[in-house]
Amino acid sequence: VSDNRSLPLGPGAEFDRIRRIAERLGDRAGELGDDCALISLGGKTLAISSDLSVERVHFRREWLTPEEIGWRAAAAALSDLAAEGAQPIGLMASVGVPGNAGDGALEQLMDGVGNAAKSVGAKVLGGDLSKSEVWLVDITVLGTATRPVRRSGAVAGDSLWVTGILGGARAALRSWLAGNEPGQAARDAFAHPIPRISTGARLAEQGAHAMIDLSDGLAGDVRHLAAASGCRITVDLALLPTHPSCAEAASRDGVPVEHFAARGGEDYELLVALPASFVEADGKALSRDTGVPMTRVGSITNGSGVILSLGGKSVELGGFDQFA
Amino acid sequence: VSDNRSLPLGPGAEFDRIRRIAERLGDRAGELGDDCALISLGGKTLAISSDLSVERVHFRREWLTPEEIGWRAAAAALSDLAAEGAQPIGLMASVGVPGNAGDGALEQLMDGVGNAAKSVGAKVLGGDLSKSEVWLVDITVLGTATRPVRRSGAVAGDSLWVTGILGGARAALRSWLAGNEPGQAARDAFAHPIPRISTGARLAEQGAHAMIDLSDGLAGDVRHLAAASGCRITVDLALLPTHPSCAEAASRDGVPVEHFAARGGEDYELLVALPASFVEADGKALSRDTGVPMTRVGSITNGSGVILSLGGKSVELGGFDQFA
Repeated sequence: VSDNRSLPLGPGAEFDRIRRIAERLGDRAGELGDDCALISLGGKTLAISSDLSVERVHFRREWLTPEEIGWRAAAAALSDLAAEGAQPIGLMASVGVPGNAGDGALEQLMDGVGNAAKSVGAKVLGGDLSKSEVWLVDITVLGTATRPVRRSGAVAGDSLWVTGILGGARAALRSWLAGNEPGQAARDAFAHPIPRISTGARLAEQGAHAMIDLSDGLAGDVRHLAAASGCRITVDLALLPTHPSCAEAASRDGVPVEHFAARGGEDYELLVALPASFVEADGKALSRDTGVPMTRVGSITNGSGVILSLGGKSVELGGFDQFA
Repeated sequence: VSDNRSLPLGPGAEFDRIRRIAERLGDRAGELGDDCALISLGGKTLAISSDLSVERVHFRREWLTPEEIGWRAAAAALSDLAAEGAQPIGLMASVGVPGNAGDGALEQLMDGVGNAAKSVGAKVLGGDLSKSEVWLVDITVLGTATRPVRRSGAVAGDSLWVTGILGGARAALRSWLAGNEPGQAARDAFAHPIPRISTGARLAEQGAHAMIDLSDGLAGDVRHLAAASGCRITVDLALLPTHPSCAEAASRDGVPVEHFAARGGEDYELLVALPASFVEADGKALSRDTGVPMTRVGSITNGSGVILSLGGKSVELGGFDQFA
């Protein structure tokens, strides 16, 4: 237990590193551990988040066009604003490219960043450009939140919902790693994720208690929500909305499709704890208005930790951990 | 000429790339080309800047401790707030490290980031952590500016001033590249630059017309000031305050010490256009109050471009250009 005010995170080697950094920084840091940092300024609440994408860690240049690399990096950062219920203002883009990178490729990458920004009414405000041995894109997004939704507000009696469908990006990744070109739908899920800005804002308006975006897979990210909120979360994996492309990859792994989808990183969907007053009809209305599926997948009770179950049996699954 | 509202930049391959990006982004971008992006929010003006530092481009791990790598990256970004006359609020730190990097080194790097933030009253607000084949640190700083000083406000009749002394960081770099350990003063200039936050704020209060921080060397950066302001700037290199460690490196190069210092990147001092009402006595008073030397080095007239002269003779010098 440190004197740092940061939100508790779930388990994992990556999060152990972040915990140690937060502890070391002590009062030199603000409150870390949410999707966004929040600052009060002139009566407004500013939400800020950064997302770093690195070649051969987050993407390979053989898989994606430069436009897609840029879109994906910006969408991943904008997704953190969505998970706060915030409205984007703009973003800063720091880009590293090899000295011999064609100018065309750099401009195409920034096209993707600009397209993602424009898709949610944000501007490219600035950034930095450096030589680098690997391609890299670090995006910092800024937005305003009238009613910020943190990871820490879930309480017993809430229900757990997820937007969209899960596992498509992981299915694409598996295809590429096996030397195959993924199908179009899986490829789109990986290359062109949609930041759920309007859905996140609607969920905030409708009284969402806690929210997080799915970057490391539901099985991992749900643990951050439980740890930050200090409650127990039970997920029925049978309820997960799974991407059609998961079936083949799951069967190759010899695991149920729900396991595959629950460990699917980089879906950039929202996982949200909603009060009991938000019922199935509200989910349907929200889906109809936004065009984004809303699925109830679990419940929140007193206690701690996460229980994942399938067919009445408890399942041990973790999320993706790049430092594991 | 594009329809983008960005400020004109000086010449160079790096800035050609940025010009092409700005042109491509068109109305998807805000006004690019200043030290900071500026956003109005709740009656305040928010100033934002990003600075990306990459191993083997901006530093080598053999030269600097992890703490110094972190300090230097954060100080470089904070220096952009200084050049806007802004007061820092906080920063976001995205860090890439190899998977086998010791935890100690990562925490020490963040110690340096936190120390630099604390030195100017800012907090580490958040960031991101990724595996990466090379060490990298991208810092995005946020601050507020009561009276933002842009690059574009210099007018004929202004005088040009510089803070601190120049060329120390370049002298250290030369020593390392020649296989020698630099002297302590030069090493400090490179490893531990001081963002001129309080000096920048004082200059803004005293009516500075235009300001830029020296990251690529005065000979290069002064061209951005002239281009953005649409005026001619004449610099008398004999007036440059040069770091004592420049003499040896300059003589090894067979160039006057003033040439060496004018091309010294990464000094992170401020170059500022002040109205004629700011006289030598004001410079002395400001130096006395802040402990930072203030030196008048040139003047601004109608016209365009930059004239550097030494001993009455015009000199051709450029700044550092990583893509040249």
